[in-house]
Amino acid sequence: MIKLLTVDTKIRVRYKETDRMGIVHHSNYYVWFEAGRTEYMREQGLSYREMEERGLMLPITETHCKHLQGALYDDVVVVRTSMSGFSGARIIMNYDVIKEDDQSLLA
Amino acid sequence: MIKLLTVDTKIRVRYKETDRMGIVHHSNYYVWFEAGRTEYMREQGLSYREMEERGLMLPITETHCKHLQGALYDDVVVVRTSMSGFSGARIIMNYDVIKEDDQSLLA
Amino acid sequence: MIKLLTVDTKIRVRYKETDRMGIVHHSNYYVWFEAGRTEYMREQGLSYREMEERGLMLPITETHCKHLQGALYDDVVVVRTSMSGFSGARIIMNYDVIKEDDQSLLA
Amino acid sequence: MIKLLTVDTKIRVRYKETDRMGIVHHSNYYVWFEAGRTEYMREQGLSYREMEERGLMLPITETHCKHLQGALYDDVVVVRTSMSGFSGARIIMNYDVIKEDDQSLLA
Repeated sequence: MIKLLTVDTKIRVRYKETDRMGIVHHSNYYVWFEAGRTEYMREQGLSYREMEERGLMLPITETHCKHLQGALYDDVVVVRTSMSGFSGARIIMNYDVIKEDDQSLLA
Repeated sequence: MIKLLTVDTKIRVRYKETDRMGIVHHSNYYVWFEAGRTEYMREQGLSYREMEERGLMLPITETHCKHLQGALYDDVVVVRTSMSGFSGARIIMNYDVIKEDDQSLLA
Repeated sequence: MIKLLTVDTKIRVRYKETDRMGIVHHSNYYVWFEAGRTEYMREQGLSYREMEERGLMLPITETHCKHLQGALYDDVVVVRTSMSGFSGARIIMNYDVIKEDDQSLLA
Repeated sequence: MIKLLTVDTKIRVRYKETDRMGIVHHSNYYVWFEAGRTEYMREQGLSYREMEERGLMLPITETHCKHLQGALYDDVVVVRTSMSGFSGARIIMNYDVIKEDDQSLLA
């Protein structure tokens, strides 16, 4: 898989994002992916907000994530975003979530 | 304070609603209030969804909550909703959150 | 794929679960799946809350969802939950999200 | 009210934080306040995560917010955090949410 461009977005884990297991609830990764995607597009000169305001929407059709290791409250994570392919009218985005301090891959 | 009508909405606490302290994150009470408000209006013969679709919006201007006791994952809570007053164009809603099994007041 | 048991959990879409596209944000489906899983286990005589309190945790290792159609605020959806397999120490759960009024498959 | 110290925390509004009204759902302000509080404490030399890990918890007992104006997806907001008083064992925190581009007060 060739990645022409990767864009890193730093996120500090919020208290609200944790659950009673003490780690970040898995559904939040999809929210972080979205933040990563917004920055990826901005880096390409595109504002997704403006695109939507002009009527161009990119609805999500499929989501997938492997959860390797849990992130903790107040950790800083990096969402490394790239485009990994096209498939018809679909865009396939790829995200790695990396813990900043030890560079371990979380998802 | 005279309450003409109270409407009870049952909610089972979701895993996602807990945080690392093991209890429900306080911000979720506002989400539950909203669920209670929707049912309160339905009980009055009003669908808030339809109202919005016809262009009548009720934006939130002020929120307040006393958090007395934490709810746990899988608890069943009752959101007891009433209207406690008007103030000009504003409607003031009141909510009690009660734990179903021991009837203790949570918020 | 043989499904020995399916458990249905009804959920009314909350206002908070929608996003500016007007539909339910995709990350909420994973929260609904979790609610479905809790009820599935209860139906089998297991309380996941008690299991956790005794130290048995089931962390999520992989999540996947196809988003076919958007759910709207105040829709009632059914999360139809089943176990679709084992793979070593892993349990694979399967979820269909169905809109109650027209029985259309959302995810 | 004398404010000895204010700490600013920048937050870019996430898509997930919006609702079908097109603005940020009011419950998210409490999540932002928490992010502001974490940074406020860090600025004072305190890590709330470490405090908790040593057994010192600061549960929320009361929350209140005036919602003046809605924030939009991709807006940058500043959470201006200060301590506005003590009351027995309670700490009272105060937060202003300011839109970065025009400095308007949102909450």
